[in-house]
Amino acid sequence: MYSQQQLEELASFYKDQLVNDTIPFWFPRSYDTENGGYLLMRDADGTLIDTDKAVWIQGRACWLLATLYNTVESKQEWLDGAKLGYEFIRDKCFDAAGKLYFHVDQRGNPIRMRRYFFSETFAVIAFAAYAKASGDENAAELAREIFGTCIAYASGEKRMTSKYEDTRPTKGIGIPMIMINTAQQLRENIGDGRCDDAIAGWIQEIETYFVKEDIQCVMEQVALDGSIIDHIDGRTLNPGHAIEGAWFILHEAKYRNHDPHLTDLGCRMLDYMWERGWDKEHGGILYFRDVFNKPVQEYWQDMKFWWPQNETIIATLLAFLMTGDEKYAEMHRAIHEYAYTHFHDKEHGEWFGYLHRNGSIAQTAKGNLFKGPFHLPRQEWYCLQLLKQYINKK
Amino acid sequence: MYSQQQLEELASFYKDQLVNDTIPFWFPRSYDTENGGYLLMRDADGTLIDTDKAVWIQGRACWLLATLYNTVESKQEWLDGAKLGYEFIRDKCFDAAGKLYFHVDQRGNPIRMRRYFFSETFAVIAFAAYAKASGDENAAELAREIFGTCIAYASGEKRMTSKYEDTRPTKGIGIPMIMINTAQQLRENIGDGRCDDAIAGWIQEIETYFVKEDIQCVMEQVALDGSIIDHIDGRTLNPGHAIEGAWFILHEAKYRNHDPHLTDLGCRMLDYMWERGWDKEHGGILYFRDVFNKPVQEYWQDMKFWWPQNETIIATLLAFLMTGDEKYAEMHRAIHEYAYTHFHDKEHGEWFGYLHRNGSIAQTAKGNLFKGPFHLPRQEWYCLQLLKQYINKK
Repeated sequence: MYSQQQLEELASFYKDQLVNDTIPFWFPRSYDTENGGYLLMRDADGTLIDTDKAVWIQGRACWLLATLYNTVESKQEWLDGAKLGYEFIRDKCFDAAGKLYFHVDQRGNPIRMRRYFFSETFAVIAFAAYAKASGDENAAELAREIFGTCIAYASGEKRMTSKYEDTRPTKGIGIPMIMINTAQQLRENIGDGRCDDAIAGWIQEIETYFVKEDIQCVMEQVALDGSIIDHIDGRTLNPGHAIEGAWFILHEAKYRNHDPHLTDLGCRMLDYMWERGWDKEHGGILYFRDVFNKPVQEYWQDMKFWWPQNETIIATLLAFLMTGDEKYAEMHRAIHEYAYTHFHDKEHGEWFGYLHRNGSIAQTAKGNLFKGPFHLPRQEWYCLQLLKQYINKK
Repeated sequence: MYSQQQLEELASFYKDQLVNDTIPFWFPRSYDTENGGYLLMRDADGTLIDTDKAVWIQGRACWLLATLYNTVESKQEWLDGAKLGYEFIRDKCFDAAGKLYFHVDQRGNPIRMRRYFFSETFAVIAFAAYAKASGDENAAELAREIFGTCIAYASGEKRMTSKYEDTRPTKGIGIPMIMINTAQQLRENIGDGRCDDAIAGWIQEIETYFVKEDIQCVMEQVALDGSIIDHIDGRTLNPGHAIEGAWFILHEAKYRNHDPHLTDLGCRMLDYMWERGWDKEHGGILYFRDVFNKPVQEYWQDMKFWWPQNETIIATLLAFLMTGDEKYAEMHRAIHEYAYTHFHDKEHGEWFGYLHRNGSIAQTAKGNLFKGPFHLPRQEWYCLQLLKQYINKK
């Protein structure tokens, strides 16, 4: 259980980590004032290891800076910083057909296009948060327009090239999940009439097809009718990802006046995937598991990555504050303790990204094509905002 | 140093492992007499974990069975087994345009096409070995025809879709390497007039662009002029892969009457990459390293996979037998000892595929989309044949 005083201490801890440890690792040194955007691929001590720019992370960093400006402190530096990312993505990261690249060089020359539309979803949340921070109506319009493109991809109206043939069609939880969060951010920063119904639809899709009450599990992918595909890929679970989905749904439940059905759904997803993902031997959330406990093919399956821990810290705290159920306080305490003990770099700030199963550090990069200023600062920011709401309410 | 008696003991050991441990893990139980091909995705104890078929591994298994028939014992079972793979690939694994799939289901329905032509190279070595075993002239013709397709891809005459934009063009060592081995197998099983010159050309490409004497390193990819691309991907080394390249070149040196230039090149590649890849703390060959010792992005970079150990066992033994240099005997002893101690499953036979850096088992699959009856039995077979040559010579 957490007392009010302990909740206040937690809020102070997250605020202090966010403002005095995580953010100063990245900024101001990562602003690329010459080319726009951010230089985020850094080793443990902050040394730049690559000048390239991952478009996902450019969008996420822009979202973070604008969000800090909107909710933590209206520092001009953060607003100017958000503008760097907004303009870089807007001016340098689209191809001729209007699709966002995945990877560009320092100046924005294209390195790699991918078929997915995740760059687009991060642009939506970045542009919406920046529009709110700056009052720039063009940024708001662009956010809404790109969100429309994302909806078209998510619904299948706009088709992505598939990696797979038609023999064994599948659907993944990733698309409804990312769309829920994208729509929530858009709605809560600049408002958009499409969001409420669309979010309800994506949650229903997750509940209908991916959440399996009989085996207490959230699947990562399923056949079109929701059945489990009994092959290596089809059996692979991603507990940290499903737990991220759980807190997106709990967030929606809270937004909808603590809707009891959604609260129950989010809590069940968290319960199921904590049981599947928590490492009872070493602590922390494992990366992949097989639904029937067969060997997982992805090589890093039993490593501990930073982001599943961040998602689980949010989900357990949110579940506790929404339900008051003591078990979630215990889960939150366990994951918070594990994560800040093993991932936090006490010397240089921020977290290591990649630990072996036993908690030793596998490699030291703080930023690369897939890691940057997002999951950790979002967790610290989200938990801080949440705790402030619940502390003030009592 | 190895005495003649020790070499004889090594030959017996590899023969015994191959015939009484490795092969019986896979066959006869993996023959799919109903659908053709092989059912190879198996857990530690041989339990089938997936009925799908990886086209690379279908080709490699067919090559192995035919090669055992050609060189170890003319067992009818192995010839019949090779035929299952040959016919399955020939009849079920090509798309309408004549390109081989990467992944099909049990019956040969397509799951995934990939842009690369590695399925083709494994079909060439499979069909050539099967043609020799069976005397089937159609198989020989097909092997030569598909080899022609591979040459067209390797030369750029036939273009693969690129994952990357044109901003920063690269070339990889993987293509000349796989082509050398494919041509060697084709030549040594059924003869092909194109092979000698082509192999010389691919070796020259490796020597000119990828082998860096100044920094004692074999690069995995470089810019078109051979310069190092100082970004995360460009800096990533794959020591086990480069060591495989080293023994392909030593094999060619031996074939060309111990050509001294090629012998020196192969030995230098082995020396450089042993220094980069050998784990001085725990033993074994690490998966990836950064050329400037920066963090590597691929998550399994410090794991121990089975195949780099197999390649290094071959390369060190070959280097020792060709040069008589004691240091290679010591290296061979170290890698052989490490690998058979940590990877070999004494209970069920064959090797585990995936160890943590410290040698503990990360996951138990013996076969999946990427592992099957190839690197381990090839190593045991190659070392056995090699030792027989050198033991008989003295």
